Amino acid sequence: MNDDGRFGLDRRTKLLGPVKLDSGASFAPVEFAYETYGTLNADKSNAILICHALTGDQYVASTHPVTGKPGWWTRMVGEGKPVDPDRHCIICINVLGSCMGSSGPASFDPASDAPYGMDFPVITIADMVRAQAILLDHLGIEKLACVIGGSMGGMLALTFVSLFPDRVQSAIVIASTARHSAQNIAFHEVGRQAIMADPHWQNGGYYGSVDQPDAGLAVARMAAHITYLSEEGLTQKFGRQLQDRPDGTKGTKTFGFDADFQVESYLRHQGLSFVERFDANSYLYITRAMDYYDLAEAHGGSLAAAFKNTKTRFCLISFDTDWLYPTIESKRVVRALNAAGAAASFVELSSPFGHDAFLLDAPEMNRIVDGFLKAGGL
Amino acid sequence: MNDDGRFGLDRRTKLLGPVKLDSGASFAPVEFAYETYGTLNADKSNAILICHALTGDQYVASTHPVTGKPGWWTRMVGEGKPVDPDRHCIICINVLGSCMGSSGPASFDPASDAPYGMDFPVITIADMVRAQAILLDHLGIEKLACVIGGSMGGMLALTFVSLFPDRVQSAIVIASTARHSAQNIAFHEVGRQAIMADPHWQNGGYYGSVDQPDAGLAVARMAAHITYLSEEGLTQKFGRQLQDRPDGTKGTKTFGFDADFQVESYLRHQGLSFVERFDANSYLYITRAMDYYDLAEAHGGSLAAAFKNTKTRFCLISFDTDWLYPTIESKRVVRALNAAGAAASFVELSSPFGHDAFLLDAPEMNRIVDGFLKAGGL
Repeated sequence: MNDDGRFGLDRRTKLLGPVKLDSGASFAPVEFAYETYGTLNADKSNAILICHALTGDQYVASTHPVTGKPGWWTRMVGEGKPVDPDRHCIICINVLGSCMGSSGPASFDPASDAPYGMDFPVITIADMVRAQAILLDHLGIEKLACVIGGSMGGMLALTFVSLFPDRVQSAIVIASTARHSAQNIAFHEVGRQAIMADPHWQNGGYYGSVDQPDAGLAVARMAAHITYLSEEGLTQKFGRQLQDRPDGTKGTKTFGFDADFQVESYLRHQGLSFVERFDANSYLYITRAMDYYDLAEAHGGSLAAAFKNTKTRFCLISFDTDWLYPTIESKRVVRALNAAGAAASFVELSSPFGHDAFLLDAPEMNRIVDGFLKAGGL
Repeated sequence: MNDDGRFGLDRRTKLLGPVKLDSGASFAPVEFAYETYGTLNADKSNAILICHALTGDQYVASTHPVTGKPGWWTRMVGEGKPVDPDRHCIICINVLGSCMGSSGPASFDPASDAPYGMDFPVITIADMVRAQAILLDHLGIEKLACVIGGSMGGMLALTFVSLFPDRVQSAIVIASTARHSAQNIAFHEVGRQAIMADPHWQNGGYYGSVDQPDAGLAVARMAAHITYLSEEGLTQKFGRQLQDRPDGTKGTKTFGFDADFQVESYLRHQGLSFVERFDANSYLYITRAMDYYDLAEAHGGSLAAAFKNTKTRFCLISFDTDWLYPTIESKRVVRALNAAGAAASFVELSSPFGHDAFLLDAPEMNRIVDGFLKAGGL
């Protein structure tokens, strides 16, 4: 396996596909950027797929090539961690529509000899999953021992089980939901409008231009970022504390429009640093996919029907201060799984950090994931 | 009084001032746009000041000149309503910094012979209150029987009592707070960044230009509007319902970036209609004033000290689904008032409509305001 070029860090491949999209269109060829960690065992029974969130990527446990920062889930994935390359063959794939190497609006469109831009097809969470299944076929992985995801990654995990029930032995869904609510859609729409209001967006045709829709994308990120944090966490971290001046003097009100408060400075930084690593059109496409997401919809409104006869074991985790995908949404999934006769465990964890908690230090979350995997012989 | 031109609908006056601002500057002259309803009685004991919210105005109970819509609080103010021009002399003043006739960034600056733009001084809630006190002096109203406000209006009401304890017999504070939280500041900062990212903003110098920062202001309004509604209310009103097409056909997913969902269409409408009636710079200045607002700050962090020895009677009302200024903030005010020995009544009302509930039909709110006023001999 060590000589198999399909496995390893920073892999890229282009596959014929096509991905049959929910819109009715077909998408081909399909580029994939992904990473694998660890070795697939002889009976191919140790594969774990990790699904990333909206602005995440395949660098789950290795250095991000743009930011130089450690992988986004090194707390969960790594030697001695619950998901361990010494025991597991871990795969993480940049989702369709994103901008870290898998096909997305910034990718080259062979039909036009230019980036797709807004000619990229509108996709859904299910389309992302169908694409990932094609890559798994390419890797020779028929069955996943587990699919794990937080936030949008959890949506992919649930959808994977629903679309390919025989391919998934277990699923771990963290800080996620089975549908996007009106409020979820509303926040995403604000972000999209901020991007599309930026004159540098140019109807998505900004690739190659000096001016990029950075201002709009930064505002979109700022609005979204508030939803990732809890009111409690913001108060603990920043409260009404004023920002110290660059010369080191203690912060005072400037009676101007500079970032007087630490929380303003923090948010601005979040917006500015985001545009360095993310594509505005990808933000439009992926938020759209999330807004279209409602697992029950394709099953006559019955979420239980989405998991009919499933043999997959489920573990759901929510955080008490997560108001983006609150506990009640996880409970709704658990009720549906119970109705479908599925094995499902659920726990709500306490954290002051809101939705972002799943990316931060959460020893209880790690213990639960570890226990769940080991109970499944992993 | 009927012949007194100072009283009546759609009044305007320019006073010498100055308003001594928290920033240390003085502002003069001061233009005021305001309305009065009813007649000041002989002993001038029936004056009720109503303070409007962030994007509100003086047209509390008369037709808005731009939108043609009824006044924003006709449910509370009018014949047979709790605040009744048959019994009360009602005053509502456009706040300093706003754009409906009182001095604000869009006003004419005598020093430059042009609109102030960003040369308008940064103001605070206390500055707004000091300005309103100057107008009350001009009207010959020394004492207010009651000051009433919801949201930012409640901040003005609390501040009025704190600054001028001898001028206010009673205060009604609805869906409000004694300070802006980190999350409150964060949402406002997103709105300001959206405006300032709009190239048509031109550092606030857009007056007289064909292009106005409408796109940025609309995004700011959309983000803020989400905070005015509850998740529950949004779900009840819109859920994931799709928007019917202009030709009347039933809504379907378009797999594009049009407003597919009703909540998207609603939010876009909120943004577009707002820019017709509001000035982008005023939005910057007033949100800044609200973010600077922390009544305890000037009293060594003790909110009770802000109301020391007050003889004012207080009535506080919150709504259970208001997550912008949640009940806990009203309770914090009540505890401080209790500690200061003030007479304070408080009730949390149930409503699915979030922060906006105070502007909507709320019979219980009306009964409470009516009872509180009558208990004070009004």
